[in-house]
Amino acid sequence: MSEMRSNLRIDGPRLLNRLADLGAIGDTGDGGARRLALSEEDRQGRNWLKAQMHALGLTIATDKIGNIFGTLPGREDGPPVMLGSHIDTVGTGGRYDGALGVLAGLEVVAVLRDAGITPRYPVCIAAFTNEEGARFQPDMMGSCVHAGVLSLEEAYAARDADGVSVGDAIRAIDAIGTLEPGSIKPRAYLELHIEQGPILDSEGPVIGAVTGVQGIRWFEITLEGESNHAGTTPISYRRDPGLVASALNVEARQVADSILDQRCTIGRMEFTPGQINVVPKRVTMTLDLRNPNDTHLDKAEHHLKEFLATTAKAHGVSVSIQETARFAATPFDERLIVAVEGAAKEMGHASRRMVSGAGHDAQLMAAIAPAAMIFVPSVDGLSHNPREFTKPEHIVAGGDVLLAATLRLADA
Amino acid sequence: MSEMRSNLRIDGPRLLNRLADLGAIGDTGDGGARRLALSEEDRQGRNWLKAQMHALGLTIATDKIGNIFGTLPGREDGPPVMLGSHIDTVGTGGRYDGALGVLAGLEVVAVLRDAGITPRYPVCIAAFTNEEGARFQPDMMGSCVHAGVLSLEEAYAARDADGVSVGDAIRAIDAIGTLEPGSIKPRAYLELHIEQGPILDSEGPVIGAVTGVQGIRWFEITLEGESNHAGTTPISYRRDPGLVASALNVEARQVADSILDQRCTIGRMEFTPGQINVVPKRVTMTLDLRNPNDTHLDKAEHHLKEFLATTAKAHGVSVSIQETARFAATPFDERLIVAVEGAAKEMGHASRRMVSGAGHDAQLMAAIAPAAMIFVPSVDGLSHNPREFTKPEHIVAGGDVLLAATLRLADA
Repeated sequence: MSEMRSNLRIDGPRLLNRLADLGAIGDTGDGGARRLALSEEDRQGRNWLKAQMHALGLTIATDKIGNIFGTLPGREDGPPVMLGSHIDTVGTGGRYDGALGVLAGLEVVAVLRDAGITPRYPVCIAAFTNEEGARFQPDMMGSCVHAGVLSLEEAYAARDADGVSVGDAIRAIDAIGTLEPGSIKPRAYLELHIEQGPILDSEGPVIGAVTGVQGIRWFEITLEGESNHAGTTPISYRRDPGLVASALNVEARQVADSILDQRCTIGRMEFTPGQINVVPKRVTMTLDLRNPNDTHLDKAEHHLKEFLATTAKAHGVSVSIQETARFAATPFDERLIVAVEGAAKEMGHASRRMVSGAGHDAQLMAAIAPAAMIFVPSVDGLSHNPREFTKPEHIVAGGDVLLAATLRLADA
Repeated sequence: MSEMRSNLRIDGPRLLNRLADLGAIGDTGDGGARRLALSEEDRQGRNWLKAQMHALGLTIATDKIGNIFGTLPGREDGPPVMLGSHIDTVGTGGRYDGALGVLAGLEVVAVLRDAGITPRYPVCIAAFTNEEGARFQPDMMGSCVHAGVLSLEEAYAARDADGVSVGDAIRAIDAIGTLEPGSIKPRAYLELHIEQGPILDSEGPVIGAVTGVQGIRWFEITLEGESNHAGTTPISYRRDPGLVASALNVEARQVADSILDQRCTIGRMEFTPGQINVVPKRVTMTLDLRNPNDTHLDKAEHHLKEFLATTAKAHGVSVSIQETARFAATPFDERLIVAVEGAAKEMGHASRRMVSGAGHDAQLMAAIAPAAMIFVPSVDGLSHNPREFTKPEHIVAGGDVLLAATLRLADA
């Protein structure tokens, strides 16, 4: 039987067709898709997905936050191997982010059925609600509720920019199920995803064996100085928050260059009043710090806060810092990472270990089960963009590796 | 007669009353005034001013750009000593900026009339149109036209944010006169003005003998990089225009600290798309460079442009620079500066030489006549602000120095 299984491959055109079919729901006409969580397009996507699961003979269950599970029974009962991701998108999303992981899971199940294989343990395909957080915050909402780090009540109470709550939206599209969240605790969780970054596309190889998700810390910083006339105010009299903000940006780059795997991003700076001939009175800015190692992240945060305090004081500028997000670094399960590497080798693809720069449902699942991820290249690293693209041969490679890894885990 | 003249002093309460009367036109209720150029409030201010000139028996003439001249005849004909400034304000202006120079000029004339003194040369009080440039650009429009550096046609064609032209606005408030601009070429031009900066208020003394106006260069800079995901894009892959903009701000401070009298200001930076987790794609920013010495200003501009080009290149960011304003440094007339210093001493006030950080009508008049300025302190350096304030005793000191300097020049 292992002989036969090692010859198993996914049906590439079938997976690509499913990606095209789901991509047609919320098609934005420019290659992209828009299926905001719990929107009409999301409803259509969910119904399409359940129809696919139904056609494959899976047992379908939906939980109270709208997470959809389609299960192929195993020869034994017990916790399934779960293959999951999400089918919601950001406002200007692409066809691959999230969709790939769910549809490749369907393809794995389809191959097993076609080959007449019943694995030892059940295989469950999961689509988690509102991974993107584009309409309702927090992101990764469905997997947060599943993992028990967010209560159902908190999730229902979240509102979009129009004041519509998750509770109302989920009822409006009839996406609410009866399953208690967290009921299905898998023996292993695997998620195939596009990298959303440039590394595999630029440097290869085709398969990333993801060792974990970076820790993330977000800060909103307000610097208050004094508005002054650019012509009449000597430099020594100034209290310029723009200068302090700029110095922090330059220092953040130094930190990123000197601490292993550290990423620092200042994505926004707003100067008030923002006039050419006026020293700004106030600057609001953001700081995004990421590192796969929380100890390194602590070091980066500590250094930059010290630098900011010292620099602001030297310029007579006051500082207010609000932490708006904090996710600990999530290391994935070593046994699963090895399974992914072995599966890649079995399928004839080189792989490299790498860290996920973005957040994924897998990091929540890692709290309740062994978890890992498989990355395939994103052309030019683009994502959250209609031009998001992964080459068909890389889609197929990722699907094959997911299939082989699933067999290793579901028959272990 | 010189004995009698050395005892002459202005009537302080009368000058302060006139400042209050003009400040009541366009009173914003918070201590400030709003008399945008060629607005209804400007019309009322102009009519009030002409009535004051008429009551003093001055010969009134208005030119085709609306500059108002009221002349007290001298014992001899010939070019007058001109005492000028402006009565328009910015949108949220104060009671002193501009108004002080015109009304102190009126007070000088009033004192001479009261004392029965006819100076050797005429004394002409001038109020120039649209010094502020808050509604119509360029600023210092009336004195630019008077000095011949801006044509009447160009001035008439300037439009405000609502599309109303200067030509239409000046006719609508009946502020257009018959005098050809530039007809009156004074033998000397003096302008009393509030400092609009913190130096005299912080360090004293009461009187600034202004030696010139800084050169000014304005730049709008656009930096284009690449928008990338803050989590998935390693630092080495980034093309971050925000980092380049920030480095320029830090470098500009170094330049200001190392080149004599150099002022550098970055008053605006805008990050696009401006999201916490996205490396910005584009930054637009401003750069304001000032120095009383054009050679030093050249050096600052050259250094910062080189730094920007090098830094942007190193980060894969493209640079576009547009120069939006350039005024050469204007040194004032040494004989007039000495006259101001002598007048201050005669009136019992210490003075210091200083440079004007802001632009003034005097810098245009310097192109066609010997010119100088007298500064008095601005409390906390505030200006273009309802809280703009100069202490009554400093107003009176400035008026006395203007009176004494006028006598030195008009009887020379």
